[in-house]
Amino acid sequence: MDCIVGIDLGGTNIAGAAADIEGNVLTEAVVSTPAGGHEVVLMAIDRLVRELAGDRELKALALGVPGIHNLKEGLCLAWDNLNWTNVPVVAYFRQRYEDIPVYMDNDARVAARGEQRFGAARNCRDFIYVTVGTGIGGGIFTGGKLITGSCGGGGEIGHMVLLPEGLPCTCGGRGCLETLAAAPALAREGRLEALKDPFSLLHELAATEGVITAEMVSEAYDRGDIAAAIAFKRCAGWLGIGLAGLINIFNPDRVIIGGGLSLAGDKLLAAVKAQVARHAMREQGRHVKIILSPLRNKAGLYGALALAMSG
Amino acid sequence: MDCIVGIDLGGTNIAGAAADIEGNVLTEAVVSTPAGGHEVVLMAIDRLVRELAGDRELKALALGVPGIHNLKEGLCLAWDNLNWTNVPVVAYFRQRYEDIPVYMDNDARVAARGEQRFGAARNCRDFIYVTVGTGIGGGIFTGGKLITGSCGGGGEIGHMVLLPEGLPCTCGGRGCLETLAAAPALAREGRLEALKDPFSLLHELAATEGVITAEMVSEAYDRGDIAAAIAFKRCAGWLGIGLAGLINIFNPDRVIIGGGLSLAGDKLLAAVKAQVARHAMREQGRHVKIILSPLRNKAGLYGALALAMSG
Repeated sequence: MDCIVGIDLGGTNIAGAAADIEGNVLTEAVVSTPAGGHEVVLMAIDRLVRELAGDRELKALALGVPGIHNLKEGLCLAWDNLNWTNVPVVAYFRQRYEDIPVYMDNDARVAARGEQRFGAARNCRDFIYVTVGTGIGGGIFTGGKLITGSCGGGGEIGHMVLLPEGLPCTCGGRGCLETLAAAPALAREGRLEALKDPFSLLHELAATEGVITAEMVSEAYDRGDIAAAIAFKRCAGWLGIGLAGLINIFNPDRVIIGGGLSLAGDKLLAAVKAQVARHAMREQGRHVKIILSPLRNKAGLYGALALAMSG
Repeated sequence: MDCIVGIDLGGTNIAGAAADIEGNVLTEAVVSTPAGGHEVVLMAIDRLVRELAGDRELKALALGVPGIHNLKEGLCLAWDNLNWTNVPVVAYFRQRYEDIPVYMDNDARVAARGEQRFGAARNCRDFIYVTVGTGIGGGIFTGGKLITGSCGGGGEIGHMVLLPEGLPCTCGGRGCLETLAAAPALAREGRLEALKDPFSLLHELAATEGVITAEMVSEAYDRGDIAAAIAFKRCAGWLGIGLAGLINIFNPDRVIIGGGLSLAGDKLLAAVKAQVARHAMREQGRHVKIILSPLRNKAGLYGALALAMSG
């Protein structure tokens, strides 16, 4: 039997799935991303691919990889999190699987493909997929085509500038959407509000746990804490403001929010929609549907399968 | 002899050109946009088209029209400046020129086509055209395709939100790029700086002329006035900040700045580039070229010819 394999590479885990050539998933597996240089990581992926394929004949392989890539050469130019520079990902696997096509793309763009093929954007030509977790990434389809940019950097939604004199960003800039609305921002704003209100649940949790995380802020908000609500609405509001600008520029049918923070659910949607209502243009705002990713943390994995099927 | 005609409709003037079917311009003309309802304006365009075509056989007609349009139906949904609502532009001309194709698109997107065919974006698949005048509009090509959006609103660069609690915008939102960097913003910031510095040239000009315009601020800056320089750099800086975000998202080869404010020339470019250097991501920033439109106020007119040739 023939199969294809998709890989979703992350800083913490490597997720993989094998599917038949129609995209029906046969098996899935997750392993930890090993510490060490890129060789060790690529070897771990190779082992996972062989395990997933098993006795089946591998017909195509696709990988979603964080960072910015030269797509023509299949080269990861830079992935800051794991200190990758100019890693020849595609060449590595082409050597090992000689007669099959090997694809690689940015992880967020791959997740957008997942939504298009298997998720909330089926039959949708114009949509924005935004993933909100440790960072903010994006995959944008316009007129049925994914924006990759002239040198593979297209879709970096997290680095639209919203507060020019704001906090420094990992990208080297300042006040990017990512510094205002990703999980570390939510944790930071949560700490700030906890300090301001020593009678808040968030302050109590901080004292008990010795730390405040994004998840704790979301949970305290669910339990009715006002300090947590303020922090949460501020970050989700910034996300809504950023998305409103994108809705004006792209005029999409749908905006799909994925990533760890999307697990916050309806309260995230409500805060985002409130800002979109304030800032989106009439026709664009009326037209767009803003929803949570139905694929959740599987968007990248299923997107890799979609990419493997794209040849 | 066969010809095509392109029309660039504006709130003040209607510009038109006839060209042969290879796009070589034969004749150009400009008339004032008449006051009155849309019928009067469409009639004026009709007269201009007949005059431009003359004895030649008209083979295609294309119009660049401000506002947001239903492109499938050839309907101008809304053009606030002239109070147009649901004007059937294409149907009007289809009735009058029965056997030829009639095209319409948003004026800024049409100008982007002009740059692609005749200007600074020849052979360029990924570029952003931004026009800065009374408002800010845009036309964005990605992977060789123009972004129109799912209901014709794609490219509204002027309405990305940069200052959420900023001044109200004509679009109904707040703090859009347009409120910070278009010509009225430059005039407003000029007035502000003139008030702050009663010894400035700008203050003197304001006293003499009884008004401060964007052109006056630009001119006073050229003559070395510091108040004018502060106002100009603030507005051009916001433009640079907005463009930096777009450069991160689209990863274009080129950004082309057109419209009335582009006549400010090198000092505009310098202020824009300074902010792009601060805020664009490494690869995207290194890759992009930011230039002034070589077609200047003809981009829309030549773009209409390009659109007429697109069929």
